Amino acid sequence: MIRVIIIGSGNVGIHLARVFLNTREIKLVQVYNRTLEPLKKIEGKVSTTTNLNELKDADIYIISVSDNSIENISKSLNFTAKLVVHTSGSTHLNTLNSSNRKGVFYPLQTFSKNKELSFKGIPICIESENNNDLMLLKSLASLISNNVYILDSKQRFNMHISAVFVNNFVNNLYYIGNEICEKNNIPVEILHPLIKETAEKVQTLAPKDAQTGPARRKDTATIESQLKQLTEHHAAIYKILTDSIIKTYS
Amino acid sequence: MIRVIIIGSGNVGIHLARVFLNTREIKLVQVYNRTLEPLKKIEGKVSTTTNLNELKDADIYIISVSDNSIENISKSLNFTAKLVVHTSGSTHLNTLNSSNRKGVFYPLQTFSKNKELSFKGIPICIESENNNDLMLLKSLASLISNNVYILDSKQRFNMHISAVFVNNFVNNLYYIGNEICEKNNIPVEILHPLIKETAEKVQTLAPKDAQTGPARRKDTATIESQLKQLTEHHAAIYKILTDSIIKTYS
Repeated sequence: MIRVIIIGSGNVGIHLARVFLNTREIKLVQVYNRTLEPLKKIEGKVSTTTNLNELKDADIYIISVSDNSIENISKSLNFTAKLVVHTSGSTHLNTLNSSNRKGVFYPLQTFSKNKELSFKGIPICIESENNNDLMLLKSLASLISNNVYILDSKQRFNMHISAVFVNNFVNNLYYIGNEICEKNNIPVEILHPLIKETAEKVQTLAPKDAQTGPARRKDTATIESQLKQLTEHHAAIYKILTDSIIKTYS
Repeated sequence: MIRVIIIGSGNVGIHLARVFLNTREIKLVQVYNRTLEPLKKIEGKVSTTTNLNELKDADIYIISVSDNSIENISKSLNFTAKLVVHTSGSTHLNTLNSSNRKGVFYPLQTFSKNKELSFKGIPICIESENNNDLMLLKSLASLISNNVYILDSKQRFNMHISAVFVNNFVNNLYYIGNEICEKNNIPVEILHPLIKETAEKVQTLAPKDAQTGPARRKDTATIESQLKQLTEHHAAIYKILTDSIIKTYS
């Protein structure tokens, strides 16, 4: 039985709390949050607190707060020599205060408040200062996910950049696609199967081999005629990504 | 029974030929291609020809060739007053020669030679000059897909631009994500669940509500630190899409 306390109740914290509560080999001892409101989502299922000085005893303390609060929260803990980890993609292990043993427990996924998802397929990236702690984090991660990766802070930082490209930026392109449809009275649902297939294709095919479209074909006539239709903002994005595709194959 | 002839054996032509061959209410009469090689994929299953003057009689002739060959091919047909359609997203209906009745039969999907996919979910956009032909195209489309849309040439043109954003450009971002992983010795498979969930999320949630990440949070410290790690090429894309996200929420 691994005893865990979660510090912070944002999207990641709440999702972790839920999956821990549903995993027999994990004991979720307590959940902390600065304010009461977010704790209501798990009310009655686990001990909660808004006072950092009231944290109970546990094997792993998981700090799941905004990146720029991690350092302060880890400094504010009134115990020492415990395993304290954060859940951030782009925060270095050493941002955590040295009074406790440091670690990272970073689930690579996009969490939304109102969308449930299974943890089994979510990659969890772990890191720690010593092998015992790494094995403990690996045990915890393996209980909720089939994809556990050991990455150092530099690798994790770069992987988070990758994630920004394939999630944050991709989602903005979905948004632009929708905008263009709406402007032309085309139901946005028309794009859904294409969006899905584009993502599914690269699960088995390298993106380099999956590329299609006017830029891939260097079809400058189509590129020019499409550019003419776009707002300045969309045209700038169109140009840079068209150049990027052309560059990939030249 | 709708009798169809396909002119051109690229990705779209071959995928259409296969689904027509598997649909009882459709009779695929013949497939034309300029050269013999691509026709080998459907050899023995349907009459084939490399001579445009040998085309048989059919209810619908589907020209599925590169955008800039559509006009010439439609001019070269030695018959008149037949229904001749093209399968292009960004080509106007009137690009087709006026000696025949014009139409469009455009499946909105990314077709790769080596990946099979079911047509049932693929949106098919149809257009024609008169209602009888439109109903015939609707019947044909409905036999292979559950998502049939009537779009005029301007709408289809703009929808094709949307598709360039949500497919072509998205795929280039997947490619960049892979590149960053490979450079840092991170297995690219780590990105697959995130890519899939990002696409699945917007099937039910508007992209505007699904957005997460440093740009959404206006987390300038993370943005600056990530930018420092990137090549000039990747940094330029990072900047323009970060600005685009910030703009969306300001």
